[in-house]
Parts: sequence; C-alpha cells; structure tokens
Amino acid sequence: MIDKIQIQDKRFELSSGAGSDAVHKDPQYSYAVTQLTENGQTGTGLAFTLGAGNDLVCNAARFYAENLKGIGIEDLMSNFGQTFKTLSNEQQFRWLGPHKGVVHLGLASVTNACYDLWAKKRGVPLWKLLIDLTPEEIVNTLDLSYLEDVLTRAEAVEMLQAEVSSRKERTTILQAGYPGYDTSVGWFNYDDEKVRENCKKAIDNGFTAMKLKVGSADPTRDIRRANIVREVAGEGAKVMLDANQQWTLPEAISICGELKNMNPYWIEEPTHPDDILAHMLLSEAVTPIKLALGEHVPNRIVFKNYLQAGCTSFAQVDAVRVGGISEFITISLMCKKFGVPVVPHVGDMGQLHQHLVLFNHIAMGHEALFLEHIPHLKQHFVNPIKIENGVYITPQEPGSSCDLK
Amino acid sequence: MIDKIQIQDKRFELSSGAGSDAVHKDPQYSYAVTQLTENGQTGTGLAFTLGAGNDLVCNAARFYAENLKGIGIEDLMSNFGQTFKTLSNEQQFRWLGPHKGVVHLGLASVTNACYDLWAKKRGVPLWKLLIDLTPEEIVNTLDLSYLEDVLTRAEAVEMLQAEVSSRKERTTILQAGYPGYDTSVGWFNYDDEKVRENCKKAIDNGFTAMKLKVGSADPTRDIRRANIVREVAGEGAKVMLDANQQWTLPEAISICGELKNMNPYWIEEPTHPDDILAHMLLSEAVTPIKLALGEHVPNRIVFKNYLQAGCTSFAQVDAVRVGGISEFITISLMCKKFGVPVVPHVGDMGQLHQHLVLFNHIAMGHEALFLEHIPHLKQHFVNPIKIENGVYITPQEPGSSCDLK
Repeated sequence: MIDKIQIQDKRFELSSGAGSDAVHKDPQYSYAVTQLTENGQTGTGLAFTLGAGNDLVCNAARFYAENLKGIGIEDLMSNFGQTFKTLSNEQQFRWLGPHKGVVHLGLASVTNACYDLWAKKRGVPLWKLLIDLTPEEIVNTLDLSYLEDVLTRAEAVEMLQAEVSSRKERTTILQAGYPGYDTSVGWFNYDDEKVRENCKKAIDNGFTAMKLKVGSADPTRDIRRANIVREVAGEGAKVMLDANQQWTLPEAISICGELKNMNPYWIEEPTHPDDILAHMLLSEAVTPIKLALGEHVPNRIVFKNYLQAGCTSFAQVDAVRVGGISEFITISLMCKKFGVPVVPHVGDMGQLHQHLVLFNHIAMGHEALFLEHIPHLKQHFVNPIKIENGVYITPQEPGSSCDLK
Repeated sequence: MIDKIQIQDKRFELSSGAGSDAVHKDPQYSYAVTQLTENGQTGTGLAFTLGAGNDLVCNAARFYAENLKGIGIEDLMSNFGQTFKTLSNEQQFRWLGPHKGVVHLGLASVTNACYDLWAKKRGVPLWKLLIDLTPEEIVNTLDLSYLEDVLTRAEAVEMLQAEVSSRKERTTILQAGYPGYDTSVGWFNYDDEKVRENCKKAIDNGFTAMKLKVGSADPTRDIRRANIVREVAGEGAKVMLDANQQWTLPEAISICGELKNMNPYWIEEPTHPDDILAHMLLSEAVTPIKLALGEHVPNRIVFKNYLQAGCTSFAQVDAVRVGGISEFITISLMCKKFGVPVVPHVGDMGQLHQHLVLFNHIAMGHEALFLEHIPHLKQHFVNPIKIENGVYITPQEPGSSCDLK
C-alpha cells in the first residue's frame, strides 16, 4: 500500500526566447511533481505550469494525495474512476474550481503518479499497461459523470470492444514509431532568421510538420513569418499557426482571413479558451481553415461542449492540464465518438503523451496523426523521449517516463 | 500611495446544517481577505471559499497585491480596467487559469480591497461612490477584453449615459430599501420540520421570497419539501429551488418536470456550471421553468456565452467569485444589454452586494428584483447588513461594508 507521499516544486530556466508566445513572453517551464511510494517503488506524476504559482499546484496536489495513503495501488486502480470522482468533488475544495485551475492541475499531478506507479508495479511501460487492460478495466479508471448525454459507461466499453479485432494491424506503430511535429521552429521571440534556420533544421531532422507562434501586435509580422515557414518547409509540409489566445474575435476573423493564403494545417487557440460561442462563429467565418484548441481547456465538460458545438477540428487535450491520464482517456473517447483527432499539447514535453497516443491509436482506433515535440527539458528527465527521423521511438522502460533527475 | 499589504485567512464555523446543500454537505464559510493601506486608511476586500484551500486563494491574492505597492488609490482607480487586465494576464500566473479558479478568486479579493479603499478615501459608501462616477469613469475601471463582439467601450459608456436622465426616480430605493430573499429557510441538511418552521419565520420577518435546497438522491424528498415551502409560503410568494449542480442533464430534465407543479420562481444550478450546451437543452426542455446560475461561473467570458445562448433567466454573478467589483459591473452591463436580471449569489453574505445592486438599479437601470440574504456571519462584520421587513436598509458607512472584526 502507498506509504509515502512527496510533492516537489521543480522549475527550469529556458534558453533565450524558447517557450515564448504572444501571451507568455517569458515563461519558466515548471512541474508540480507528485511521488507516491508503495513498498519502495515510486510513481511520479506531473502537472505543468509556467513558473509563478507552481507552489499553489503543489499544495493542491498534497491535499489530494494525502487521501491515498494506506491504499494498495492495484486496489486503487481497479476502480480509479470512483476515486477520481470523489477527490475532484471534495466538498470544500471543489469550490475552488470546480474541476479547473489550480485544484484540477493538482489532481492531474496525483492521478498521473497513480498510473505511473501502477505501470511500474507491473513492470511495463504505461502504453503496454493500458493496451493490455480489458475495456471494462479501462472504463473503471474513468469518471464519466456530467457526460451522460454523450457517453455512457456501456457505450465506452462497447467503443473499446469494437476496436479489439483490428488492434493487431495498428500495433505496427510500436516498431514504426509515432510521428512527431516540431513546435520549436518558431517561438514568438525568435527573429525571422532564426525561424528560417530552425525550419531547415527541422526538415533535416525528418520532420514534415512544424508550428509557428503568431499573434503579433502587427499582423504583417505574422504573415511574413508564416510565409517564411511555408517557403522553407515546402508545399507538402504541414504548417500550424498558434495564436495562444491573443486575438479578439473580430481580430481573429480578420487575421485568419489573411493567413488563409499560406494554407495552414490548423490555427491554434485563436481567442479565449472559455469562449465556445466565439469559436463557433470563427470556425464558420474562416472555413476552410481548421481550428485546434485544448491546451487551456480544463476538463471533460468543456471539451464536451466544444465537441458538441463542432468548432474544433483537433482536440489538444493535455494530460498535465486536465485531471490527468484518467480524464485524458475520457476526453479521447468522446473525441473518437465525435470523429475529432486527438493531438495533445505536451506540457510534459511528450514524456507521458508518447504513451497515451500509442494507446489512443491501438486501443481506441484514433488516427496516428502526430505528437508535438518540444526538446527544451530533455536533460532533466531520467528517460528522455527519443526522436529519430521525425518519429518518437517507442519507450520500453516501466512506467510513464516522467521521472525527473 | 498604498504602503502596506496584509492578507488574512479567515474561517468561520457554521451551526449545524447551516450552509449545507446537495454537493457541499459540510462547508466552512471562509474569506481570503486583502487589506491595502494608504496613509493609515485601510481598504478590505474579500474572496469567498468553503474552507479547505482558502490559504491557496490568500497566496494568489498576495501575488497580485504586491504589484500595487507604491501606487496612489485615486491614480489606480482612474484607470483600473488596465490594471485588472494586466494583473489577470500576468504571463506566468495566467497559466493557472486563465481567469478562473484559485487565481481569479485571489484577484477578486485584491480588486475588492481597491474599491473599498477608494470609497473610504472619499468618505462615502461604495454605492454612492459608484453612482457619483461619470459613465466614462466607471468604464475606466472595467476590462472589456474578449467581449468585443457584444460590448465595446463606447457602447458601455452610452448605456450608462442613457440611464442618467431617469436616475432620480430610481433613487427612491435608497429610502425604501432593496428587497431581500431568504436562502436559509431550507438548507439541505435541515429536516422537514425545520424547513416548515423557517418558512413561517421568514414570512413573519417580511420576506416574500425564499429558497430551498434540492438535489436529493431521492427526488421524492425534493418534491415533498418543495411542496412544504409552497404550502407555508402561499401562492403569492416566490419560491426558488437550488440543486447546486447535483443533477446530470437527463436527471435535471426529468426532475424539473416533476417540480414544475409547485411553480418555482427559478431552478438554480441544475447541473455542471461549465456545461453551457446542457443548459441550452435543459432550458428548452423544461419551459416555462426559468433557470438561474452564476454562483460558479468564473468570468465575463463564460457569462457572455450563457447570455448569448439565452439559457439563463437570472444571472447570479458573485463579486467574490468573478474578478471582483470591476468584473461584476462588466457582467451586469452585459446582462442589461441582453435583458437578463442580475440577482447576485452572496458569498459576501450581502455585505458588498447590497452596494452593487443599488448601483445596478440606479445607474444601470436594472430591475430592483431582490438580493439573497444569508445571516450566518453577521456577528463577524464590523458593519453587518441590516434587514428589516424583508428589505436591506441602505448602508451609510464609508466603504463596502466588508471589514471583519
């Protein structure tokens, strides 16, 4: 049973300009780290923040983690959905959300530590743990409350069951490697020349998809830089543009219209992540441009709304933003039902998500589109992700690859 | 200029059953208190929580408040909208929301302290400070970003300007007193007999409107108790039912149908506060029942969505939940535009909101419907609200009546 709980506030400086976007000019990549120990084996879970306030998330994680003392990990995970529901609705703490912001980030950290410990206990990488569970066992780890109108328990089990017969052909991804895309070619503070160089490097490294930060006060800067990326990457490459919520709705409509010419694969976070109706209007106004969002969508209920509204073409759910792996899987199931690809935002630098996208593809039948790649914290992980020729090499170590040095 | 900042974590025990609802079975009413001092004069601001995690909100408040040191309060408030925008978008801390949860509660506490200090500095009650400001001065205290599609600055000024000529007739409310409604007749844990007694008392005390907590596991309990309140209060009274998010959408549709018979004035928080589309479906399914919500709606952007969706008939914005008085006024302006009455949830026990509803009525032309009344913390305030014959007696002390003993 879990007999030791440790919470750590880990913050990492970035080299100049890295991580910058239109809204976050000078971030510090940080993790609220939960460690749960059972018989000397330690599970590690992360929540991601940008520096200030990471201590608040640590405090929230501690609040939740204390409830897990004395429970065996196998027992806990056999019905984790109920635990998730109980913790996330703790009757006083719930007021601070519900299910969003600092408290939900804290829950993500704790949830992720539980899954990591579970996989380590069984001596397998997280992706293998997950694909070896039965559909019922998977669904037992989920909290489907407030989704009754779109996804019942029976339906979730059935959806997973329906994919079992075709699984085998999708396991070839384990050898081939999951494709990555390069987010670091075009951070906001990089000058044009650096963007150009980075694009060349990305292509040399085998990437065929890459992302540029937009949302400049002067839209002509965005357009100029988007054209640079397109020019260097070529017509065949996928180029994504990310505004990080910088635009108002009228601005987004106008600027997206101008960016249409360079044929972006998607435009990401055009405006405020709470503004579902603005995204509905925008997605209609800028057809055929596709919108992507999810980095700041806090929970399954808001995702449900976005999916029902039909205004996001890519769901960028992040397991270190929503309530961890459990809610990530729940949201992935909903996306499958609505026919929307899951392309996670990787606050975890892809360490955890490389496991989750394999599970999504193999067990859920999601398309293996690509996974964001951000290399800035590689040296801090015990088992950093490996990317070769633009694909993630399938991790083999037990757990979720989230242990920090 | 502001030369001293104090943050306090204040928690108060409630007597047995008070404050309980279907989701919050055993709350502890708590405030994250910000105090800003300028030349020996101290402004007090509150954010409300239910106990656990109140310390997190205090830490967030401290983070924001530190930025105000060295600024004169008159200078600050002459353009507070810009300060609000800057603080709420602090580029690292913003990740923890944005504009919701712990960080936004912290901002509420600080914002409210600024307005309190401002009113005290001028030696007037907050309601008088606000109604004496010009439309431009009011709008200078607001952050209208992400509302460009529904409320521009020019429109906000115009809306206030349009009400100036008819203000005088509405100032009669200052003598008459703002009507209250009694929330404490029917807390969830109270037994039927206590509910019946409380209803009688409420009527004896001059109330013509009161609220019952519903959301029982057994819906027949809700129906029985709702009928008790209706029976005691009579057909002429307004009886509101509050489910505190307890129902799933299918449950809400079914149970609201059964509660229709006792003619509720509104049904409050039927399901999850993030679920805009569920409220749209529900409001259509249960016509003519009216829905009320806002207690857990974190910011102006989500309120904008609810107003655009047309699925809430009463906006229960709470200035100790959204980013304080500034965002409360912003949301009230939007509500005016959409023709939706503002009936605040009173996490502040009405201390602050008694000022704000007077302003909403006199300067904005909102209907003076009624204000929630919860008496449980009266003894802890320096100037507790006074309610006589069911109406709030207009406060005359300088400030926003939020000083705690």
